[in-house]
Amino acid sequence: MSPISEKRFDIVFEAQARSSGKMRNDISLRFTRTNECYELATDEGAFHGGDGTAPPPLAPFAAALVGCVMTQIRAFATRLRMRVRAVNVQARLHWQAVQQAQEPYVSAPVGFQLDIELETDEPVEAQQRLIDAAKKGCFIEATLARPNIVTHRLRTPHGWRDI
Amino acid sequence: MSPISEKRFDIVFEAQARSSGKMRNDISLRFTRTNECYELATDEGAFHGGDGTAPPPLAPFAAALVGCVMTQIRAFATRLRMRVRAVNVQARLHWQAVQQAQEPYVSAPVGFQLDIELETDEPVEAQQRLIDAAKKGCFIEATLARPNIVTHRLRTPHGWRDI
Repeated sequence: MSPISEKRFDIVFEAQARSSGKMRNDISLRFTRTNECYELATDEGAFHGGDGTAPPPLAPFAAALVGCVMTQIRAFATRLRMRVRAVNVQARLHWQAVQQAQEPYVSAPVGFQLDIELETDEPVEAQQRLIDAAKKGCFIEATLARPNIVTHRLRTPHGWRDI
Repeated sequence: MSPISEKRFDIVFEAQARSSGKMRNDISLRFTRTNECYELATDEGAFHGGDGTAPPPLAPFAAALVGCVMTQIRAFATRLRMRVRAVNVQARLHWQAVQQAQEPYVSAPVGFQLDIELETDEPVEAQQRLIDAAKKGCFIEATLARPNIVTHRLRTPHGWRDI
């Protein structure tokens, strides 16, 4: 028996971001694998003290989650030799925040529901296998399945401090 | 002693998304609190079989994470009566995928590092308190600290199936 071939690959995004305007942030991103760069921005509406020049951060977050799983569904359909004409997703992302007196609030996710519809003639069981594969392959889904992977450092006068 | 007042509020984003083009996804978002809507898209470069008409999903994900914590730093600086002239963040988001033979690959986060620099005259300890508050208040950071909050349903001929 020949051993099963195993390939590993790394995906790295680098970001450089700077606050601008009242609540706007300008974020330059680079995908190290292809050296492709993307300029994105976030802002807040008047409701949260911003100028509404760009979507608030939760909008690109929701788009990223939905877009990532949809992308993997299509990429893996090809690999699994399934014909999927189109993918439709409706999603609802729900968070809750709690504020004591005038303290900064503390937030938590309540739940994210993705309702997926495949335009395909494949049986439901095959569709489910495809979505299971997409969930495991989707970098954002995989990220949300694991706690505490974000780390931080603060620039201090004496160098970077882990916080 | 009077009880400490506690306020709770919900943040809900709704998305409707449809695949278009080879790997492009068009995503319409609505923030239910203000009824503001945002149109975002993702695509892939030629490397992953797309047309490069929009950033790949991990770009808005990275922008959302970085932008969210930067936004909360500024929002909470005001609340904590700290003066912060600007916020700069450098970030590196690293994932790894493993593929057996020609199977769909399985992905996992390796680590996300956020290097934060505040342009401020506040002492480092106050800056650290501010960032600690921003980490707890940031909806995306709070999301990444908790596993398994994404749920899925598949549209089948007999209705929605939990998957």
